[in-house]
Amino acid sequence: MAGKVYLIGAGPGDPDLLTLKALRLLQSAEVVVHDRLVSPEIMALTPAGALCVPVGKAAGFHSVPQDRINELLVEMARDGHRVVRLKGGDPLIFGRGSEEAEALAAAGIPYAYVPGITAAQGAACSTGVPLTHRGLATGVRYVTGHRAQDAALELDWQSLADPDTTLVVYMGAANMVEIAARLIAAGMPLDLPVLAVAHATTPRERRMLSDLARIGADLARQPMEAPVLFVIGRVAGLYETAALPLPQRQRGAHLRVVGHG
Amino acid sequence: MAGKVYLIGAGPGDPDLLTLKALRLLQSAEVVVHDRLVSPEIMALTPAGALCVPVGKAAGFHSVPQDRINELLVEMARDGHRVVRLKGGDPLIFGRGSEEAEALAAAGIPYAYVPGITAAQGAACSTGVPLTHRGLATGVRYVTGHRAQDAALELDWQSLADPDTTLVVYMGAANMVEIAARLIAAGMPLDLPVLAVAHATTPRERRMLSDLARIGADLARQPMEAPVLFVIGRVAGLYETAALPLPQRQRGAHLRVVGHG
Ligand SMILES: C[S@@+](CC[C@H](N)C(=O)[O-])C[C@H]1O[C@@H](n2cnc3c(N)ncnc32)[C@H](O)[C@@H]1O
Ligand SMILES: C[S@@+](CC[C@H](N)C(=O)[O-])C[C@H]1O[C@@H](n2cnc3c(N)ncnc32)[C@H](O)[C@@H]1O
Repeated sequence: MAGKVYLIGAGPGDPDLLTLKALRLLQSAEVVVHDRLVSPEIMALTPAGALCVPVGKAAGFHSVPQDRINELLVEMARDGHRVVRLKGGDPLIFGRGSEEAEALAAAGIPYAYVPGITAAQGAACSTGVPLTHRGLATGVRYVTGHRAQDAALELDWQSLADPDTTLVVYMGAANMVEIAARLIAAGMPLDLPVLAVAHATTPRERRMLSDLARIGADLARQPMEAPVLFVIGRVAGLYETAALPLPQRQRGAHLRVVGHG
Repeated sequence: MAGKVYLIGAGPGDPDLLTLKALRLLQSAEVVVHDRLVSPEIMALTPAGALCVPVGKAAGFHSVPQDRINELLVEMARDGHRVVRLKGGDPLIFGRGSEEAEALAAAGIPYAYVPGITAAQGAACSTGVPLTHRGLATGVRYVTGHRAQDAALELDWQSLADPDTTLVVYMGAANMVEIAARLIAAGMPLDLPVLAVAHATTPRERRMLSDLARIGADLARQPMEAPVLFVIGRVAGLYETAALPLPQRQRGAHLRVVGHG
């Protein structure tokens, strides 16, 4: 009997931000294939007997190639296991969940997605900076600041330079100087606020308020530990008046969902 | 002693997509001030003794003005209550959560946000259509298709006409014909796929796959019940090969989180 693979978003880090569905599936998993981005607090919730296989990037580790991850999921499910593929944030926002789904579908393995709070939402609710706000941002846009080795950043700068849209840059720490410069060249104001948030929603959360002109220098002077997210736009200016306190260190989380069904 | 207001995202409708934090706060609420968008399945989880005040828009009801909602939250908290302000999706994505926070801050009332799965994520994970996907979409953008009475749609069409970005339109059903026409005029292909999803993640979920040229006629012929979300972009074309089954009607949900802390 073939197993099934659940492509699950673990949210930004705080275990309390898991969905009920994610927690329940995680706690009945036989195999957990997880990104290194998934926080230790969340990994602590995996069942004692489950096999946990770390894949994906982290500083100082080689990442397992996507093809091998796909193969692994297929093999584990063919063995009849209930596999949880646990990803940071949401599986379908810079999560490559749908690439893994394609491999599973090709192999005839059943799968399902479970959404997760994406990093932008975690950072917004934790810092107090909204993604949309009347008079400041009529919409929000998520882009990746990552580029394939030696390739140029594949971003349409003219399209991005929209002062009415909050721009959230994922995977952007390494290229933030260039991103800021290009946005300025495309017409965005030098003093457009930028809020950098590292480890959002966890006890390790750190923030830095800057602007397009200064963000490069600020990051050079005060580097932030990955993962870091950048919220660019007028909404980020609200941080000066509406900042919320950093997340508290939580007592050991012993979460369990009961009585469903 | 002043109370506290929790500005909480309830997610797209499936109670299983509540975060652990949202459910716990909901189940200890004394007062729940909720949008009509919040699903009956989720409202069924409010404690027996809690006062539930419906505000916000629904077909056939007058909505409570935002100023009155702000006042209500302040008054309830001043009375010493633990108030849950429950919103569909995420409180900081087209949720006006930060406007309510400003009113609370001005009145000296403590508040906190709890993020929720936004409708786009719910629709993506439920239908199988990703928001980003290698080779199809390098980013995603959420806009509102709503316009103030008689005002023009305040959207920058040139910026929106980016074929590498998935465009998700919230509150767009009434203006979809115009939105599609403007995107075509700005250079987007006539056959760019559009997936319309109503009541995503609930037993009432309905979907319609169309394209920019046909979506107006398709909606006229087969109207969809609000709330409806539109996913526009090459990713929506994956619906033809990767569509997942409609959500199952769930047995009565009796959710409870225990043992936290
Ligand atoms: C490969 S992407 C995965 C995004 C994930 N699927 C999501 O929806 O959040 C990794 C990037 O997400 C962002 N990120 C994820 N978790 C974060 C957190 N807790 N705080 C800040 N940024 C985070 C960082 O920009 C990081 O480089
Ligand atoms: C005022 S906005 C609120 C958005 C909400 N804060 C969120 O993050 O999802 C209302 C719009 O959200 C979308 N929406 C909310 N829930 C939905 C669902 N379950 N299915 C489809 N669309 C939904 C519709 O476009 C609707 O017009």
